[in-house]
Amino acid sequence: MVERIKRKCGNRKEIIAVTMGDPGGVGPELALSLFKERLDIPLLLIGDYSIFERARMLLKLEKHLRFLTDISKFDSSFINVIDVGIKEHYSFQKTSSANGKAAFLAIKKAISLAVEKKVCAVVTCPISKYGLKMAGFDYPGHTEIFAKLTGTEKYRMLFVSEHFKVLLHTIHVPLGKVSEEFLSVNLEDTFRIAHEFLSKYINVEKPIVYVAGLNPHAGENGKIGREEEEIIKPVMRKISNELEFELAGPFPADTLFVKALKDKPHMIIAMYHDQGLIPVKLIDFYNAVNITAGIPFIRTSPDHGTAFDIAWLGKADNQSFLNAVKLAYQYSLNL
Amino acid sequence: MVERIKRKCGNRKEIIAVTMGDPGGVGPELALSLFKERLDIPLLLIGDYSIFERARMLLKLEKHLRFLTDISKFDSSFINVIDVGIKEHYSFQKTSSANGKAAFLAIKKAISLAVEKKVCAVVTCPISKYGLKMAGFDYPGHTEIFAKLTGTEKYRMLFVSEHFKVLLHTIHVPLGKVSEEFLSVNLEDTFRIAHEFLSKYINVEKPIVYVAGLNPHAGENGKIGREEEEIIKPVMRKISNELEFELAGPFPADTLFVKALKDKPHMIIAMYHDQGLIPVKLIDFYNAVNITAGIPFIRTSPDHGTAFDIAWLGKADNQSFLNAVKLAYQYSLNL
Repeated sequence: MVERIKRKCGNRKEIIAVTMGDPGGVGPELALSLFKERLDIPLLLIGDYSIFERARMLLKLEKHLRFLTDISKFDSSFINVIDVGIKEHYSFQKTSSANGKAAFLAIKKAISLAVEKKVCAVVTCPISKYGLKMAGFDYPGHTEIFAKLTGTEKYRMLFVSEHFKVLLHTIHVPLGKVSEEFLSVNLEDTFRIAHEFLSKYINVEKPIVYVAGLNPHAGENGKIGREEEEIIKPVMRKISNELEFELAGPFPADTLFVKALKDKPHMIIAMYHDQGLIPVKLIDFYNAVNITAGIPFIRTSPDHGTAFDIAWLGKADNQSFLNAVKLAYQYSLNL
Repeated sequence: MVERIKRKCGNRKEIIAVTMGDPGGVGPELALSLFKERLDIPLLLIGDYSIFERARMLLKLEKHLRFLTDISKFDSSFINVIDVGIKEHYSFQKTSSANGKAAFLAIKKAISLAVEKKVCAVVTCPISKYGLKMAGFDYPGHTEIFAKLTGTEKYRMLFVSEHFKVLLHTIHVPLGKVSEEFLSVNLEDTFRIAHEFLSKYINVEKPIVYVAGLNPHAGENGKIGREEEEIIKPVMRKISNELEFELAGPFPADTLFVKALKDKPHMIIAMYHDQGLIPVKLIDFYNAVNITAGIPFIRTSPDHGTAFDIAWLGKADNQSFLNAVKLAYQYSLNL
């Protein structure tokens, strides 16, 4: 398996990069908590060395940190760290301009390592968009940073949990704008991104994908909205002819997820944020992982934020984060 | 308890009326299937006597039917039937004008008995709106018939399942019209209907109600839509002052239902169809019951349709229907 990784992923093993996130949040302790688990996954921490050291002390880890500058020197008997610290005072349990800057530099470094194929995947700890903004980086979140810095124009948010893989066609728009956004985002691209992701990382010959309708009752043959008849169905027909894909639907969203629990399709395409995330969180709240589909490598993150209120107390729950790491590794192995 | 019922509900015990539904669908066999259960609930069937007799034969029930004209003669040793049959040929496994007419007459009779307090609640078997339309009755569903025939202007759809009670602010509108509909439906009334229902049927002094936001992340302080700040919060403040009510939210819909699983509020107010029904069906698919809140008595129905494809084969699953009957009885006892 390692051979396959080397071949596909580059010259340096199956290393997974883990970014620090906002140093004021739960990121650093989540990153270090990985070394309490028996994971057998080569992890490379990227961020401020002193912050990681502080988290190591908090968690009373025996394993020592080690500065790494040359990835070929990666050594699993240590906790390998690439230091992109900015030698400023950080804020704890809140964010600041320094926090935002350090968080951003870690992401930037991780992306460049992934693009150069020196690491196979990136797992990101939570950031604060307010911290980023204070530091002069105005992004809604990780997704847009990864898209921008990898030069990716076509990408979608994907949520993977124990029971569902849900790709969102539209994301953070007011409900009153969803039907406009539904039109302006290219639905063919949504299907193509789903297909590419499944072919690349899931290894199924002809993936089965369930598609949600936009309207209640999936429009009920045009009586409650016409998007299913005029857009979703024609695009599904076109894409079915173009790609090796078994597309089913559009299904009424209120029964789709019950059906999917039973049928276990490889992916579900949801048309808007809450349509996809209500079921994911309801069934798999603590293990949902957020993935950016469409970029040239795997990037996962836990499905929660910086949790400033409980940060640096050693009580952050790492379940979703752990799933993000395991999933990144598993998908890298499938490459 | 029977004393309480007599006092509140009128002069004739805690009788629950059950309408036949479309005679071509699963309604008649569902109605008769109740007599196979050990329910100890006085049930009065309303519809075509010959149809009920046919369903009785199908299910091989030993208990006999009995025409009832005077409710004071109700006798639990029989299956009591009020006959509103139209002596026409009905269609089976599909609908027709005759089916629609007979279904409508059963509903009309049940409503008049409930209004006269001769029965305490009405449970409806599934109808076909196409059948109704063929017979000249153009209604989207039971909800609107009950509203119209009881002269109720303010009513909402309520779904009750094992884990959730979800009241819908808006229902069958295309997603692109939800934000308009959200404005044109009176949100204060939605809260008042919720409050009245809880006070009347659930017997809690100060009900706790969770409110969903309309937008993703409940608008994120106005950044993803302004309805939460400009409408939902002000209305919640006003209603909190007016009624004995503990209102919490507006919560992001994608985490609200997880929170509600844990906190068990008395009711949840969802702003649109799929926001409320995705979680209800996902968690409690087979036991969700549909209620019309706002009318002067309890009306429940199973959360499924006529199921023409499996009708009259004796294989309809009566779980949701049974819950509808039990819930109607339980709420009547609370009166």
